[in-house]
Amino acid sequence: MASLSTKTGQVVDRSVLDSMLRRRLFYTPSFEIYGGVSGLYDYGPPGCAVLNNIVDLWRKHFVLEEDMLEVDCTMLTPHEILKTSGHVDKFADWMCKDPKTGEIFRADHLVEEVLEARLKGDKEARGQKVEVDEEKEAKKKKKVKQTKAVKLDDAVVKEYEETLAQIDNFDGPELEKIIAKYDIRNPTTDGNLLPPVAFNLMFQTSIGPSSNMPGYLRPETAQGQFLNFQKLLEFNQQSMPFASASIGKSFRNEISPRAGLLRVREFLMAEIEHFVDPQGGKKHARFEEVKDVKMTLLNRDIQLSGSTKTEEMTIGKAVETGLVDNETLGYFLARIQLFLLKLGVDPKKLRFRQHMANEMAHYATDCWDAELQTSYGWIECVGCADRSAYDLTVHKNKTGAPLVVRETRAEPLKVEEWQIDLDKKNFGPRFKKDGKTVTAAIDALSQELREKLSLDLEQTGKIEVEVEGVAGGKVELDKELIKIEKRTRVENVREYTPNVIEPSFGIGRILYSMIEQVYWSREGDEARGVLSFPPAIAPTKVLIVPLSTHQSFAPLVQRLTTKLRRMGVSNRVDDSSASIGKRYARNDELGTPFGVTVDFQSVKDNTFTLRDRDSTKQVRASEDEIAQAIKSLVEGEETWEDVRKRLPEFTGQEVE
Amino acid sequence: MASLSTKTGQVVDRSVLDSMLRRRLFYTPSFEIYGGVSGLYDYGPPGCAVLNNIVDLWRKHFVLEEDMLEVDCTMLTPHEILKTSGHVDKFADWMCKDPKTGEIFRADHLVEEVLEARLKGDKEARGQKVEVDEEKEAKKKKKVKQTKAVKLDDAVVKEYEETLAQIDNFDGPELEKIIAKYDIRNPTTDGNLLPPVAFNLMFQTSIGPSSNMPGYLRPETAQGQFLNFQKLLEFNQQSMPFASASIGKSFRNEISPRAGLLRVREFLMAEIEHFVDPQGGKKHARFEEVKDVKMTLLNRDIQLSGSTKTEEMTIGKAVETGLVDNETLGYFLARIQLFLLKLGVDPKKLRFRQHMANEMAHYATDCWDAELQTSYGWIECVGCADRSAYDLTVHKNKTGAPLVVRETRAEPLKVEEWQIDLDKKNFGPRFKKDGKTVTAAIDALSQELREKLSLDLEQTGKIEVEVEGVAGGKVELDKELIKIEKRTRVENVREYTPNVIEPSFGIGRILYSMIEQVYWSREGDEARGVLSFPPAIAPTKVLIVPLSTHQSFAPLVQRLTTKLRRMGVSNRVDDSSASIGKRYARNDELGTPFGVTVDFQSVKDNTFTLRDRDSTKQVRASEDEIAQAIKSLVEGEETWEDVRKRLPEFTGQEVE
Repeated sequence: MASLSTKTGQVVDRSVLDSMLRRRLFYTPSFEIYGGVSGLYDYGPPGCAVLNNIVDLWRKHFVLEEDMLEVDCTMLTPHEILKTSGHVDKFADWMCKDPKTGEIFRADHLVEEVLEARLKGDKEARGQKVEVDEEKEAKKKKKVKQTKAVKLDDAVVKEYEETLAQIDNFDGPELEKIIAKYDIRNPTTDGNLLPPVAFNLMFQTSIGPSSNMPGYLRPETAQGQFLNFQKLLEFNQQSMPFASASIGKSFRNEISPRAGLLRVREFLMAEIEHFVDPQGGKKHARFEEVKDVKMTLLNRDIQLSGSTKTEEMTIGKAVETGLVDNETLGYFLARIQLFLLKLGVDPKKLRFRQHMANEMAHYATDCWDAELQTSYGWIECVGCADRSAYDLTVHKNKTGAPLVVRETRAEPLKVEEWQIDLDKKNFGPRFKKDGKTVTAAIDALSQELREKLSLDLEQTGKIEVEVEGVAGGKVELDKELIKIEKRTRVENVREYTPNVIEPSFGIGRILYSMIEQVYWSREGDEARGVLSFPPAIAPTKVLIVPLSTHQSFAPLVQRLTTKLRRMGVSNRVDDSSASIGKRYARNDELGTPFGVTVDFQSVKDNTFTLRDRDSTKQVRASEDEIAQAIKSLVEGEETWEDVRKRLPEFTGQEVE
Repeated sequence: MASLSTKTGQVVDRSVLDSMLRRRLFYTPSFEIYGGVSGLYDYGPPGCAVLNNIVDLWRKHFVLEEDMLEVDCTMLTPHEILKTSGHVDKFADWMCKDPKTGEIFRADHLVEEVLEARLKGDKEARGQKVEVDEEKEAKKKKKVKQTKAVKLDDAVVKEYEETLAQIDNFDGPELEKIIAKYDIRNPTTDGNLLPPVAFNLMFQTSIGPSSNMPGYLRPETAQGQFLNFQKLLEFNQQSMPFASASIGKSFRNEISPRAGLLRVREFLMAEIEHFVDPQGGKKHARFEEVKDVKMTLLNRDIQLSGSTKTEEMTIGKAVETGLVDNETLGYFLARIQLFLLKLGVDPKKLRFRQHMANEMAHYATDCWDAELQTSYGWIECVGCADRSAYDLTVHKNKTGAPLVVRETRAEPLKVEEWQIDLDKKNFGPRFKKDGKTVTAAIDALSQELREKLSLDLEQTGKIEVEVEGVAGGKVELDKELIKIEKRTRVENVREYTPNVIEPSFGIGRILYSMIEQVYWSREGDEARGVLSFPPAIAPTKVLIVPLSTHQSFAPLVQRLTTKLRRMGVSNRVDDSSASIGKRYARNDELGTPFGVTVDFQSVKDNTFTLRDRDSTKQVRASEDEIAQAIKSLVEGEETWEDVRKRLPEFTGQEVE
């Protein structure tokens, strides 16, 4: 795993970053005073503000920009719905138990951990350099036995590497074989493990006082959107295509959460379900607007060949060549990229990876993940799946609700077909209680068979039809009972089940990965961390710092803070007795993009200095000019370079 | 129960309103195609938009305005935390089971239902008018047997009425007595019920793969805030008082939910925990700003006397007279009122009711509810409780975490006290394994006892101390082992556990109650409902309606919608072929406050008409003037009256 570099070329030291994020209360382990629970985290004030800002931007970028129908459905979900959707049977990970210690391991993670450790041991034995970052990781896993420097056969190294490249592609039986073949055991005790068994990842509960309605916490927000499809279509005045959207918490009872905010048991999702007619190639009316967006793509075939080499191309080209299946999928991939870039993601640390066949969720026919590069490797932050008609179909079949679109055909459709008429009067007395079964079997006859049977009937005056469970499986019918004729049927209404393209955002993963990408530290001082959030994402936009606690500053500070708040610009005052430099350093860690200093000159002439977080450069101007500049910077109308060019630079104090 | 009137004096017909809200997809029963689950609802696009707007306004009114520390904590909560907080033992309702049918009733609701039905039967028997609204209600409860017109004794009527006035004040044993005394049975079958038993309202689940960590879905967001107190205080640079805040879902496994959106099993809460020094009368620095706010108050004593008569007074007066305990509680009550009025609540349909002693949650020492009048009666929408130091104390005692404030005293505190010295050298050998127990017992001795013991020790050379479980309960100590002296202790640091004032908002209840209050219908046409949301709350701010589908309108519509969106004003186009009147009627039901018509005149001279939802009056002006007027109306800078005065009225079309 390559280590992550900051924009200034430093290697990201995750332990330093992590301690800064906790110290500044971006996040903290939940229930820490009770010892904590792995996979559960709380967001403190700055983390919560960033989260809210991401959600706001998401709502503007997707819901408002495209008139999506936002809904808010419950998290509590009865068993029956998730049984139908396939989650009760298939939403599972494979886990291995150590029968002696009772420890439980997630099978694929265990294979990864052990094979990576062996490869590292091999590198050491061959005298090759081992990544600094990995060593730190190994030290943290205190319980894991020290890696042994054991040289492996070249062929074994190759096998291990190929296995690791495809790790997401294995199911339970395959993992069982790998564990047996490579003799993978409990890394702590070296004890043998039981074969992998499926563990369902949904949290179970019971609804109501009599415990007779089992339910789960939803694993995704999507199901609520599907169940309301008919009402949403009606709300949209029967017009297709359209999208619903939902922002809310979902839950996964992870087997053994690790990797901090990246693998948690309760997480905020933002999901779009775009309903589209499966006929006509799933075109998108606004594809033209994004077709020139350049993307970094990693396709399925490359991965199966054991490589992770990406290709650069426009989304227009990707759809044209069939690498991305259709315009609608392509449109959303491009829109996802545009959204992530607005958040401050580094385009060089973003790629779109296609899922391999066995890796896809049970409902998907194609899926691309937007992955962000972090110190943990490439992390899936947004999934964009083509769920086809899977969900609407299963719920329609289960409940009988018409989760379909009915549209009047411009031209009535004329279908030539073999139609069957049954003589109801004679049919009933002949078959009695089996009548329904026989009728159903006849209705189900294919056109080919009907054509053949019509000939038989004409030639012999009778036919035989297979009907399971009636009269030994075969029923004889004569001309008195049945008539088969070729006729023309006219269809004025077309009925179809829409396909669903689903962009699904893990907001917490995006937040953490983005933070790693905007993090750097001042040159020569690793302890002075900076988070270069874009203004729209920063928890607080402006820090106001009076030079000292001198009482003449108070009214100016009060006036500034009220003025900025009225302009809708969130700001905080730091009037503590710490030095100005210290106060700015504290706010660099919080990612506050701008700072205003109130000094004795301000008291005299009502001018203020405005400081840019990233460059630490300052300008000085009148109160109104400074306020206006801040507004235009925060709203993205001007960049710092623009402001610096038009307002006089200030070099009076060093407030780096 | 008095029926609710609209602002135009109509009686609110809940079934008409409800069917409108469902038709327009403000909300819908969750999982309806699977038959639904009582107490679970989904919000559709307009409901979801109103919900988001309320949350936005809440965040501005409270979090931003007062620099509160917003946090986002997990809903999954391990057993131990909720055991400590008292919820495992006390967060329960009383339920009665019918042993024959298996039906389960919430005991207090059952008593209410049966006594109200009997009182109604009595009214009928006396030939008195029965409220229309109630009759409708009775019809809806199809399963309930028809009310019998039975006359009751005057004394019984009085008893029933007094019982109903205090219904929230009864615990399980009291409800059991009432049920026995008034012979309350299953209303459907007339069968006898088992005595009430407590049913815990938390949804239970299990965290992790080995099922060894039981947990619950949180019943409130508060606990996460309390557990993080120490970190939040640190984040706030040790400065007191301060408030944390949280917006998120909480859960109550209601016994038998009824009353639509008002009693649900999963709901959005917004909670503030304001941490304040219990010394000094809980003053509030900004109380002055709100002291003249007039409130409608219903105090505890009035209710206990069986009445619901309210008093009008300023919050300043209420605090001064001690009716409201302190400034901080009073400040928040006033701020809650100001918030509710911003949402469009009718001040005449708002009151603040003090909880009776037995009604309060186990953690509260005082509590006032903001109640909104609806067709269901007065509904608790915001609770404002003084939780004292309850929560921080129980968690501190359980975990040992210092959930306290330590502040340097301006003047060191000098305390004269009896101090005890033990001779460690002789103490150990003398008591061996009991040493710790004996020391603890001695440390716990009161000042009074120490004074008395010091005399004994001086006079007799030895003393006896009670120590449970050691040497038969009494331990003898002589002068070799113990010394007791009066000395002066100097305290430079004051340590205290803050008290908590908690305003807690049920966002879904506020939404529904507010909708009932802004609902009315056009004169002479009950079917033409209008929702008079304030612009800030309305799901969509502007409807744009081209006169017809004529192609010349399209570019103007496109330009308008883009312009408004850039201004941050959400808008929708309705270019369906329905008449203009019909399109406006549809949007009156959605509460869209403004409408812009694009007609042939617009094509000629780029002027447009702007329509006001409530008055249906119109003005006509240029594109820029109309856009500017909309912006200033939506941002609350001008009222419709202001705009109508300065722009020319338009009376060309009837677009009521």
